[in-house]
Amino acid sequence: MKNTIAALAKRGKEAGIQAATLASQRKNFLLLEMAKALKKSARLIFKANAKDLKSARSKNLSPAFIDRLTLNEKRLNESIASLKALAKLKDPVGEVVSRWRRPNGLFVAKVRVPLGVIGIIYESRPDVTVDTAALCLKSGNAVILRGGSEALHSNTVLTAILRGVLKRNGIDPNSIQTLPNISHEAIKTLLSMDQYIDLIIPRGGEKLMAMVRKLSKIPVIRHDKGVCHIFVDRDADLKMAEKIILNAKTQRPATCNAMECLLVDKKIAGRFLPPLLKNLKNKGVKVYSDEKFWGKEFLNLQLAVRVVKDMDQAMEHIRQYGSLHTEAIITQNKKRAEKFLKEVLASVVLVNASTRLNDGYQLGLGAEVGISTTKLHAFGPMGLEELTTTKFVVRGSGHLRE
Amino acid sequence: MKNTIAALAKRGKEAGIQAATLASQRKNFLLLEMAKALKKSARLIFKANAKDLKSARSKNLSPAFIDRLTLNEKRLNESIASLKALAKLKDPVGEVVSRWRRPNGLFVAKVRVPLGVIGIIYESRPDVTVDTAALCLKSGNAVILRGGSEALHSNTVLTAILRGVLKRNGIDPNSIQTLPNISHEAIKTLLSMDQYIDLIIPRGGEKLMAMVRKLSKIPVIRHDKGVCHIFVDRDADLKMAEKIILNAKTQRPATCNAMECLLVDKKIAGRFLPPLLKNLKNKGVKVYSDEKFWGKEFLNLQLAVRVVKDMDQAMEHIRQYGSLHTEAIITQNKKRAEKFLKEVLASVVLVNASTRLNDGYQLGLGAEVGISTTKLHAFGPMGLEELTTTKFVVRGSGHLRE
Repeated sequence: MKNTIAALAKRGKEAGIQAATLASQRKNFLLLEMAKALKKSARLIFKANAKDLKSARSKNLSPAFIDRLTLNEKRLNESIASLKALAKLKDPVGEVVSRWRRPNGLFVAKVRVPLGVIGIIYESRPDVTVDTAALCLKSGNAVILRGGSEALHSNTVLTAILRGVLKRNGIDPNSIQTLPNISHEAIKTLLSMDQYIDLIIPRGGEKLMAMVRKLSKIPVIRHDKGVCHIFVDRDADLKMAEKIILNAKTQRPATCNAMECLLVDKKIAGRFLPPLLKNLKNKGVKVYSDEKFWGKEFLNLQLAVRVVKDMDQAMEHIRQYGSLHTEAIITQNKKRAEKFLKEVLASVVLVNASTRLNDGYQLGLGAEVGISTTKLHAFGPMGLEELTTTKFVVRGSGHLRE
Repeated sequence: MKNTIAALAKRGKEAGIQAATLASQRKNFLLLEMAKALKKSARLIFKANAKDLKSARSKNLSPAFIDRLTLNEKRLNESIASLKALAKLKDPVGEVVSRWRRPNGLFVAKVRVPLGVIGIIYESRPDVTVDTAALCLKSGNAVILRGGSEALHSNTVLTAILRGVLKRNGIDPNSIQTLPNISHEAIKTLLSMDQYIDLIIPRGGEKLMAMVRKLSKIPVIRHDKGVCHIFVDRDADLKMAEKIILNAKTQRPATCNAMECLLVDKKIAGRFLPPLLKNLKNKGVKVYSDEKFWGKEFLNLQLAVRVVKDMDQAMEHIRQYGSLHTEAIITQNKKRAEKFLKEVLASVVLVNASTRLNDGYQLGLGAEVGISTTKLHAFGPMGLEELTTTKFVVRGSGHLRE
């Protein structure tokens, strides 16, 4: 198995050299061709997905799981729309991020280049397969995909379609590959291939994260859990606070940027909390006030609530129980808002806005491969730029080191 | 030991919270105070260094090693000058890298923030201790230093002086700490402390790199070896080529950005090489034409030379034997120069300039903690900016996710 995976990673590296030099126009054409090919093969895709769904149901997997695994017409159309939107976004490769001239006449430029080969380990959502493969193509990278084992049939068909488009257009199809063996042993082997793979992005549960952290020789950007807080300050617009809280908790509770813990300044708790809690209850939210629920990622209609002395205690709570993901304050007090925004460390900090807005599309990045909770390289939503690095390009006329 | 190191890392994290919020003026004042304190304690420093030197000599360590270990008046003055220069550089913390307004009125900004706690594992050069501690302070980070065991006395005195300045000014001194236990076991323990430490920068030999790659749960930016090439194209200005080659090989051969392999287009090899090789020999450079020397990092007056068919073969050679560090082409042909600069992947690529210019000061970053050969986060010389990350700061007025 080690040799198979090494050969696959090596093929990815070679294909990546070509992918890195593809012109923007060509990449955009390929993305539109992929959109067409997916539309044309819809029936094939649904058939493969039905196999995965059948097997998942026979294993009694949860309705939420079945939902994420499902590829229906609506979801496929969303993937197709994403491909078309991606074709319109600016190509990050070759962008001159900054340039300057040294006193001795040396010209220095920082230029964006692809990372090379990116390995993505993700959960059983087959729509992620198309999205991430497309983002890697547009950013000039080769990708090795390892989706959840339950989505194997769907992913196999999807990648075959995408690879077919590359092949028909004379591009090395190995810039999009899937790990053929989906065992944990195979992931371990993949994580040791630092001579071929430049970045591993793991998305998923704590067990996967722990394994990747422990075993990867390759740099890792984690898309880890979100234990997101909203702090309602004594000077908050309470009507606004209520709307934001309901949105952050109930609009889509299974996402990593949903609020998991509400912190309320004790000065306003007496009049703010009782009607809010009633409202939350009406929406089906179960509320906990016990401290054993602090720091939990529920991913459903559950919420921890804590009354705090002041903003300092709220910030201390976030420092201790937050996961560097998304933290918000609701207040009309400018000074306190700025202190919170400055001092709270998270990939996204907000004032008077829902935590659910921590998202590449919502924040204007155009697309995202996920939300990084790793501080290095990309902290927060990762768009096309974050799938590249920069190199220094230096132009001299016989310049020496003195 | 595990508990001692965990406690140390935890103290670093706590001190880092304070370090992150220090005003620029205060940090600059501290740097100048450190410069004064080093000057005042010069005799103490030299005494400690003498102990290290005595022990190194008794172990028969190489003259080059002894040289790197030596702290004399000239080197101490250089460190003092660095501190003063650093106080004048722009503070990266709080810088708004970019900002925009979404169509729905949401304000989004990307703001620089410190990384937190940085662990640096380095060779036996005590001047690195002062430089890196100062860079981390200016960029708002806490640092844990683990210098070479042979420099233990020097490093202990130096960090005591720097910590003393922090303490006297009411700053938590634990933002500058050294690993008290310098065993490999202690490094292993440090590499597991991902709950406290945000980044590990290893500088040094292959054994250290392999260990860090294998064991670190913490993100790593490697300052790895440099197998740097210069390719002399058929359209090179041969006089210029000769000067650059002599500079890149002999100006300071023990550095990672010195040239280790020269590639010459066969069209000009016949008239270019004989006088050059004679010249190199006169400078004491030993030249190898055997392919077993390709890909070697000599770090001294040795050089591999290969005659290649054309630029494509040179680029293929670099792809195979280079270390992503520094690669240069000498040519007057604009088209070929641009192709080389675009397609060769290395942290710094140059045309008509010496590889020795891959350096934070030379390229205008003002200071550097080293040269990263890791593509993620920072590729090439790492200055103050590269010791920070960015977070998204979002200002709304009741914005929800639709």
